[in-house]
Amino acid sequence: MQAGIIGLGLIGGSMGLALQETKMFKTILGYDINPLHNQQALSLGLVDECVELKNIQECDVIFLAIPLDGIIPTLETFDNISPYTTIIDLGGAKEKIASSIPSRMRKNFIGAHPMSGTEFFGPKAALKDLFKNKIIILTDIEDSGEFQVAYAKEIFVSIGMRIIKMGSKEHDWHIALISHLPHIISYALANAVLSQENPQTILALIGGGFKDMSRISKSSPIMWKDIFKQNKENVLKSLDIFEKEILLGKKLMEEEKWEDLKAWMAKANTLQNFM
Amino acid sequence: MQAGIIGLGLIGGSMGLALQETKMFKTILGYDINPLHNQQALSLGLVDECVELKNIQECDVIFLAIPLDGIIPTLETFDNISPYTTIIDLGGAKEKIASSIPSRMRKNFIGAHPMSGTEFFGPKAALKDLFKNKIIILTDIEDSGEFQVAYAKEIFVSIGMRIIKMGSKEHDWHIALISHLPHIISYALANAVLSQENPQTILALIGGGFKDMSRISKSSPIMWKDIFKQNKENVLKSLDIFEKEILLGKKLMEEEKWEDLKAWMAKANTLQNFM
Repeated sequence: MQAGIIGLGLIGGSMGLALQETKMFKTILGYDINPLHNQQALSLGLVDECVELKNIQECDVIFLAIPLDGIIPTLETFDNISPYTTIIDLGGAKEKIASSIPSRMRKNFIGAHPMSGTEFFGPKAALKDLFKNKIIILTDIEDSGEFQVAYAKEIFVSIGMRIIKMGSKEHDWHIALISHLPHIISYALANAVLSQENPQTILALIGGGFKDMSRISKSSPIMWKDIFKQNKENVLKSLDIFEKEILLGKKLMEEEKWEDLKAWMAKANTLQNFM
Repeated sequence: MQAGIIGLGLIGGSMGLALQETKMFKTILGYDINPLHNQQALSLGLVDECVELKNIQECDVIFLAIPLDGIIPTLETFDNISPYTTIIDLGGAKEKIASSIPSRMRKNFIGAHPMSGTEFFGPKAALKDLFKNKIIILTDIEDSGEFQVAYAKEIFVSIGMRIIKMGSKEHDWHIALISHLPHIISYALANAVLSQENPQTILALIGGGFKDMSRISKSSPIMWKDIFKQNKENVLKSLDIFEKEILLGKKLMEEEKWEDLKAWMAKANTLQNFM
């Protein structure tokens, strides 16, 4: 068996390392639009060989780990996909892509979203255990081929992931709240401090709270631009929900309703019962 | 030398453990308004002995590690403070307290804010290394006695802290941005998800981003109510700055200005140059 990975950054590179450990594949081919990434991926041993994009389609399984806007155009270049090829998209928003997959390869296609990542990006950010014990959400699998679903599941279980199935519409809404919203907030918090005259003086004081809250503001703008673009409506909706809460907190402070503010915070404390 | 700690939660309890390691004190006395906390502090070995509040004032150094609203009323109960007693307030907002210290003990008083903490609270949350390699901000020390400043510095250096001096007004503004604002945001984010019909389904999907962004939403509502109350104006001002940024991100999404959104995120990325 041969695996191909398109996009050799944090996710694609980590997938290369994880697949190697399974021993399921004779060779793992890689392709990245950035020549430097191909070089780095080879020297870091993320894949066995870097090839042209058109050669990737000969693989038994093809992973797409590229910014979302590149997924459909990449699929469209494939002119020789066998009925037994499995194409797995690892992107963070699903609905728009699900509705644009060329119909001739709909059965080949598996929508998958690994709930793992770090704030770092590029081949050097790849980690062999990035996916271990993490959740992978498979979306709209009733539209994928039975063979492809079974094969994708086998791979994800082999690299230590826990599988959850979901419709792409439901996925995009839940993920807007749990992942896309926190990213927008973190970017805004970082920019709020950076907009001050003396960010250096202020940032000299940071403790663990700000450190955690700003960590994901280091994430890739290229990747996140496409996510916000493709999941725009849900992200805006989640922002409205967040806005309502933050304005409530603000109002309680302005009106000096301290006991109500305490109750509002105590409600937030109950989050830990779910985690 | 004898040390006394009023309030035996995360901060006071950790201070007890840290002071023991310095061997600077023959005994460390403790007092907490909650009898259970006194019991727990003794059985966890956070202090040597629990005593009545009035007995604490005989100590050479007295730490106040209680919710902010309790600090001035506690100071007012002290009727027998020697000129050589050092009273150290460890609270997270400074200006209001600085302007209310009974004048007869102004020289005794040191305003100190350790930039360390966790989301946990109570005696069981105490950690012996909580303060190690962390920053402590000493505020308005020109108003404190020379002896008290020197003694406080010696103690903080002994427990491994790095000292920064600052006016209480400047402290409260910087800390609003770097600590109080992130807490309000984290509480609001937690409540945004909890306000959904099915928080459990959504929270089953969490990755590292949400985990980090919601960690401090578990913090003590009792402690934070007093902080928001005492630093209200600065927190509201910091919220306005954050609001401006989040509304900008939102606007760029609504207007589909994706390149501008990317630039906005790339600006946030520069935060790491300061950290």
